Amino acid sequence: MIWASGWRLASAVANAGGLGLIGAGSMYPEVLREHIQKCKQATDRSFGVNVPMLYPQIDEIMRIIVEEKVSYVFTSAGNPKTWTSFLKENGITVVHVVSSVRFALKAQQAGVDAVVAEGFEAGGHNGREETTTMTLIPAVREKLSIPLIAAGGIATGSAMLAAMALGADGVQVGSRFVASAEASSHQAFKQKVVEAGEGDTRLTLKELAPVRLIKNKFYEDVEDAYARCATPEQLKELLGRARAKKGMFEGDLDEGELEIGQVSALIHNILPAAQIVANMMEEFRVAREKVSEFSI
Amino acid sequence: MIWASGWRLASAVANAGGLGLIGAGSMYPEVLREHIQKCKQATDRSFGVNVPMLYPQIDEIMRIIVEEKVSYVFTSAGNPKTWTSFLKENGITVVHVVSSVRFALKAQQAGVDAVVAEGFEAGGHNGREETTTMTLIPAVREKLSIPLIAAGGIATGSAMLAAMALGADGVQVGSRFVASAEASSHQAFKQKVVEAGEGDTRLTLKELAPVRLIKNKFYEDVEDAYARCATPEQLKELLGRARAKKGMFEGDLDEGELEIGQVSALIHNILPAAQIVANMMEEFRVAREKVSEFSI
Repeated sequence: MIWASGWRLASAVANAGGLGLIGAGSMYPEVLREHIQKCKQATDRSFGVNVPMLYPQIDEIMRIIVEEKVSYVFTSAGNPKTWTSFLKENGITVVHVVSSVRFALKAQQAGVDAVVAEGFEAGGHNGREETTTMTLIPAVREKLSIPLIAAGGIATGSAMLAAMALGADGVQVGSRFVASAEASSHQAFKQKVVEAGEGDTRLTLKELAPVRLIKNKFYEDVEDAYARCATPEQLKELLGRARAKKGMFEGDLDEGELEIGQVSALIHNILPAAQIVANMMEEFRVAREKVSEFSI
Repeated sequence: MIWASGWRLASAVANAGGLGLIGAGSMYPEVLREHIQKCKQATDRSFGVNVPMLYPQIDEIMRIIVEEKVSYVFTSAGNPKTWTSFLKENGITVVHVVSSVRFALKAQQAGVDAVVAEGFEAGGHNGREETTTMTLIPAVREKLSIPLIAAGGIATGSAMLAAMALGADGVQVGSRFVASAEASSHQAFKQKVVEAGEGDTRLTLKELAPVRLIKNKFYEDVEDAYARCATPEQLKELLGRARAKKGMFEGDLDEGELEIGQVSALIHNILPAAQIVANMMEEFRVAREKVSEFSI
């Protein structure tokens, strides 16, 4: 959700009854502080910040989060042991994002309050195991004793019901909110997400950090590099810097990295976040009513 | 389900209230006839035959199916136009297996009675799009007007409920029945399926025909070939012939091809097929009861 989830989206989701998250991954520390402060002005409800822990200025980020009295922190891309105690001592609820049972249990051991388990179909950075939501959620549920939030492939209320049938206590929704009025993503990228169909995303760059993105010219260049049997160093050079910003924030659909989930195939419009939340709740009720009628 | 689903498994599933399928993919025509005849003796209920249409003796296979008055044929790996009319003229219900919306619609157009949509997590041969069950089922449901059967990642009643929440009318279960008493798979392979954990399967050989299998010595050889930037020809040579039989029927866990789904991570025992069916129905009811209690 980098370059998508700033204060506008987070506060809109919070006001609609969800737990809005600010994505710190694309923000300098002082930019994050500004987003937190604006979010507080835009909503009276709780919200959270997602922090990829490989962030270079992580100490400053965490200090700001505590100073600004943020209620929830979702950590990812790093060891949950590093920051969980510090955050919890400061009264913050900590949720860690994983893509395997093994890391879910490590997070639980580190003392987090809940785990997000994210399947292979999810957009952006992803795990190496390639475990899909359908298999991952029950596998984590089998072993984990703290609350479990499902992610990956969830853009509708029926998928929310499916995730909860598999054992999740809640869901984390990314891609669907990229195509929202309040997302800070470039309009051209939002439109690209709406137009994306079946098979238009791919998990690639597994030698660096696996990432799911829309197949575009940049992706084809990566594929060409693979066909030439490129080394990880060569792939790294090809990737370069700021590709994600270029694609998702600046709207360069050819040269940018366009991170989105497979579920983009099911996203057909750009809607206000409140409408997305309302639709999902209604779809959930309709789907639950429908499965209650199966004579099994 | 090649080398797993003979008359014993198909009739056991039929007797337990499911639609048992004989997997013709690993059978010579006269072997298939024998399995059909034995299945008829072992059950009074309907059953079906799964036919990969790239099979060299396909005409003979289809002739035998008609002669033996089989009720259901599940076709895969080929154009549904080729055989659907012939089978339907002979009173057979035809279901075609696909891994994309595009092919689901082609199957509908060819006049099949229902479609199986199989996600990326499924074992054995699979699609190139890598679409997971969580995304594939609602995407197919959106466009298809005939009945839809979900496959891939479904070994429990809660996954069955999840699939039906996503819009499926029913489910096709493979991997769970490999680890059944009645499967004709080698005992060593069944045990391997039970022991398989998270991340132990991988979709590979995408340049030939994508297949999900357990990572073993053969898989490592394939990975080494990729690291050397092997050509499809070289991969084909490495694969050779009868690898699937060697692994799944003869029990060579090192050199054989061990086809199974990601959901093997959730399979912990070898059970009689009737017990598997009964468990799934009970798990479905429990999961449905649980989601009915969420206050949404």
